This record gives sequence, structure tokens and C-alpha cells, in this order.
Amino acid sequence: MRIAMLAPISWRTPPRHYGPWELVTSLLTEALVARGVDVTLFATQDSLTAGRRAGVVPAPYSEDPSIDAKVWEMLHVGHVFEQAAAFDIIHNQADFVPLAFSRLVETPVVTTIHGFSSERILPIYRAYQDRVHYVAISAADRAPDLRYAATIHHGIPLEDFPFDPIGSADLLFFGRMHPDKGAAEAIAVARATGRRLRMAGIVQDQGYYDREVAPALDGERIAHVGAVGGAARTAMLGAAAGLLHLINFDEPFGLSVIEAMACGTPVIAMRRGSMPELIEHGVTGFLVDDIEEAIAAVPRLAEIDRAACRAAVAARFSIDHMADRYLDLYRRIAAAR
Amino acid sequence: MRIAMLAPISWRTPPRHYGPWELVTSLLTEALVARGVDVTLFATQDSLTAGRRAGVVPAPYSEDPSIDAKVWEMLHVGHVFEQAAAFDIIHNQADFVPLAFSRLVETPVVTTIHGFSSERILPIYRAYQDRVHYVAISAADRAPDLRYAATIHHGIPLEDFPFDPIGSADLLFFGRMHPDKGAAEAIAVARATGRRLRMAGIVQDQGYYDREVAPALDGERIAHVGAVGGAARTAMLGAAAGLLHLINFDEPFGLSVIEAMACGTPVIAMRRGSMPELIEHGVTGFLVDDIEEAIAAVPRLAEIDRAACRAAVAARFSIDHMADRYLDLYRRIAAAR
Repeated sequence: MRIAMLAPISWRTPPRHYGPWELVTSLLTEALVARGVDVTLFATQDSLTAGRRAGVVPAPYSEDPSIDAKVWEMLHVGHVFEQAAAFDIIHNQADFVPLAFSRLVETPVVTTIHGFSSERILPIYRAYQDRVHYVAISAADRAPDLRYAATIHHGIPLEDFPFDPIGSADLLFFGRMHPDKGAAEAIAVARATGRRLRMAGIVQDQGYYDREVAPALDGERIAHVGAVGGAARTAMLGAAAGLLHLINFDEPFGLSVIEAMACGTPVIAMRRGSMPELIEHGVTGFLVDDIEEAIAAVPRLAEIDRAACRAAVAARFSIDHMADRYLDLYRRIAAAR
Repeated sequence: MRIAMLAPISWRTPPRHYGPWELVTSLLTEALVARGVDVTLFATQDSLTAGRRAGVVPAPYSEDPSIDAKVWEMLHVGHVFEQAAAFDIIHNQADFVPLAFSRLVETPVVTTIHGFSSERILPIYRAYQDRVHYVAISAADRAPDLRYAATIHHGIPLEDFPFDPIGSADLLFFGRMHPDKGAAEAIAVARATGRRLRMAGIVQDQGYYDREVAPALDGERIAHVGAVGGAARTAMLGAAAGLLHLINFDEPFGLSVIEAMACGTPVIAMRRGSMPELIEHGVTGFLVDDIEEAIAAVPRLAEIDRAACRAAVAARFSIDHMADRYLDLYRRIAAAR
């Protein structure tokens, strides 16, 4: 089974810090390579893999301003499809552009839909649903009028997320600084409960950050450490009483939610998007409908068994589970040709 | 000879008012159809042609905010290439996206490069120069390190541009309200020479317009009539002593320059970009290096023979001439297969 794994080119694969689509692409690629699957990762040229790397894009467009995103996206996708005949499956992780190439080659195309940036991109997914095998990343993110081949939750490698049995009394915010992610709501909950709040994540919406986040930062009770990676990241995910994930959008999946749980940290999340699929209320965290409920949930974090959080990830969100599901799908598609 | 003419989808083809790429696409298409060439125009669904129209895009993205430009551009280009086998030539008038599809089909692809929006788009033109036949729209616009199949100036149908043998004492500005096009410079020249200035064109840069243009408008000495089309447009092009084309960029071609000349109106233009290819200094207008030279040229407009302006367009920039050149190119490419 020869797989062409088509990564996005916004960030390196795996990303240096932020880059959830590239992260999932890398996790799946490495898990497949570890099983002996022949995977060629088409990604930016600074990308890393234990398998074969290919690709024409010198650097990620979000990191290098000389890279025009659209120009290099076209070069990247064209390059993959020009080699389609060398692969049994093209697995597209890079949004909708590759769909338009899919009818020009014989090779089946799988597309993991990491999210719909707007209703306005649905027409192209509708136009290619007879040709491309779509994978939803959560039941919540399935567009009602699209045909999907599968729903496959993301998985993470448990061994990369050390279990912290103790945590701390602090609260944690982990995500892009953007209204969607609820940084302001996390600050409000920390203030109301008198807890310290540690915040990590890139600043995506500078206006929002300057207005809603920066004025609250005192470096002590409320601190933002910027983007954080590696061991510092997992240590931070574990050393908390709970992750505040008070999102203002129907998030299709929450990688930081399962990463925190893997480290033993329960999650307080708004009951929307994929959150009810990720969090078992009262077992691995609390699903809430507003800030008041979030504030009320903070003292109840102590009731959660941190080992149960990790066990839930091991059972339902392991990288092995995800790789198994994708391999099944590839085999099913290849058998049907 | 079956031609797939791939139009941009920013505007209708032909455009209702602004839309130079769509205008050239339409002019060439209709000229070829009139010669009996089998042309299918792939354009927005509100487009008009005497030939066959095809295309999946319901409306131009610059006119309908429900149309996501990138989504529909991919649907549009994918749709054309999926039918490549039905054509002897795909003639791309829609920038660089179609290049990435060109190696996935057998049909030769011609691309008229209407301009490079930035240096950052050159990599994709370099990557496909062995596969795609590039046409430059002027010698000035040729990128030094790209291989071109031809340089073909735009042409216009003389019969659509009535000759005005008299003109008027007024000056004319015709173009997008954007610093590139020199609206502020035209106003300065009109003021310095005491001439009336009539201005036409869409507002592309609102800040520039509010700052540099709007304060000068008095509806009498300096007036902006907005975007203008049809008979009003050609009447305006003819009823002037001269067109002021005091551009601040290396314009790859100036359609309004040859349109004004066709109506008998000479042009005062900055000596840059394609202007020296379009204007014969002292015969069809004046090439100048700065505002002072432009001011000095205004009284000399009376020296220009308006009939010579029209004759120059008839000799060098007719639609027949352009259609002949493209047909020659198509035949040369088809013969080489």
C-alpha cells in the first residue's frame, strides 16, 4: 500500500509549535510508517519524517513572508497529483484545493476535512463528493448534506504525554488568541474563582489580544507564555487543575483537550461542537453552557480522577486507534477499485 | 480547431464596466468565433458570447459576495481541465492557477500573462514554462528569465470606437482610482494648465480616493463620473483634447490608451512599462518623465493629428491583428504535437 500523504504548507510537518492540521498529518504519517506502510509525506522541505519526504515548497508560508501562499499551494498540489500513478491512495490533509485535481487522475483520493472555514467553501465539497472519500474528524463537524466515508477522531501518542498524577491548583488556557477560543472567558473564570491562570498559544487576532487579554496579564496571577512546544508544553498541560476550553464556535475537534486529558488534566468546555464527543461529563471534565456554569465547575475539578482522564484518551484517542481506522479505510477503498 | 477559452471569474465576460482581463478574453473569443473557429468560452454563467458558453460559476466573485473567490476558481479551473480531451488548445486568460493542472492533461495550454501582481508569483511561471506556452502582452512585461511563445499586443474592434475628429479642450482620466494609475497626477496637471478634467473609473483604493481625488472634485472643473460603459464610454474617450495616463507603475498594457487613440484622442503618458510600445511620441501623444513635462505637453496636444491616432490603432492594435496572431500561435502549437 503506497500512500501519498498531502500535508498543508502553512507550517512545517510536524509543526514547531502551532499547526494542528500539520500535527495530525505528522502523527498519522509516523504511525503508518512505524507499521511498515509505504508513506511519502508531501510537505514543506523543512519537514521531518521517518518515512520518505517529498515536496517542492521551500518553507511554510506562515513562517516565511517570501512564500506566496496560493502560488506555492498550487505548486505543492500540482506536484503531488503529477505523481499520482505512483500511489495507491492520495490522502489529502490540506483543505479543498486538491479536490479540483481529483478527477484528472486514477488514484483514489481521501480527504480529511479538518474544518469548514465558512459555509462558502461547501460548494466544492459538494461538487467532489462522488469522487473523493471524505473523512469527518468528529460527528459534530459532519455537514448534513455531504457523503462521508468515515468519521475518525484524531489520536495522539500517549507516550509523548507524561501523566501528571498531581497537577496543581492552577487553571490552564491552551489555544490561539482569537475570540473563537475563549481566552477572555478563561480570564473571567480565573478571576471569579481566585485561581491562577497560565495561558499558552499564538496570537492570531492581535486586536482581540490587545483588547481582551493583554490588559489582564500580570505575569503572576494571569500569565501568557506565548507559543510553547516540546517538553515545556506537555509539562504545562499536566501541571494544572483543569483546562478551560470555553470556545465560542462549534470546534470540529480539540486536540489540546485530549492532550490535556492524556496528561491527567480534566477539561471544562462549552457544550458545543465536538466537545460532547471528547469529554465525558463528570468523568473527564465538565460540559457547561455559560461562564457561570464554568465558574461553578472549577471547585468540582477536584472530584475528577486524573487517571480516568488518561485512561479515556488511551481507550478512545490513541494514535494506534486512529491509524487502524485510516488503514481500514485505505484497504476498503483499494479493494473496491 | 477546438479552443477552450478559460476566462477569469472576477467579472462577467465581457465585463459590465471594469474587468480588463475579461474584456480582452471576450474580444478575442468573439473575433475567433466570427472567423468560424470553434471556441467554448468557460466563464461566469452570466457571461455572453456568440459562441458556446460553458462554466460552473454562478456569478462573478467581485460582484457577488456569496461567491468565495478561491473555491469557485478551483471549481472553474477543475471543470475546464476535466474536459481537456475535447479541445485542441486550452487558452488560459486567468492567471496562474491553471498552470498547476497543465501536466495532468494532454491538451496543450496557452497562457496569456496579463501581468505579474508581484515577484512572488514568478516561481509558478518558472515551474511550468516547459509545459505551458506563455504569451506576453507587451515586450515591457516579459520577465527576463521566462520563455515565451509570443508577444501579442491587445487589439480592439475599431468599429466599436467612433472617431471624434474634433475632441474638446478638456483633459481625460480613465482608469481605476488607485495610486498606480496616477489620478492625483492628472488632477495636478489639469490645475496647472487650467483645463477641465473629466475622470472615469471604479474606486479600487478608497483611502487614496478620499485623500487625493475626492477633495478636488467640484463637478465642474474636475468631475468623476464613476464607472462608465457603452456609448457613454466611447463618447467620453473621444470628447477630449488628451488622455492623461501618468502611471506610477510599469503597466504591462494600457487598454484605455489605445481605446482613446482609436477615438482620436492623443495620450500623455509616463515613459514606463508598455507606454513606449503603445504611443509614438509626437505622433499619437507624448511620453513624459515627470509632471512638469506632462504640463508642458498639454498645449502641444493641438499639434497631434487626431486621424493619425486612429490610424495607428487600426494599423497595430486592431482586433483582427490580435486574432491573427493568436490563431497563428494555436496552429503552430497544434502542428507541433
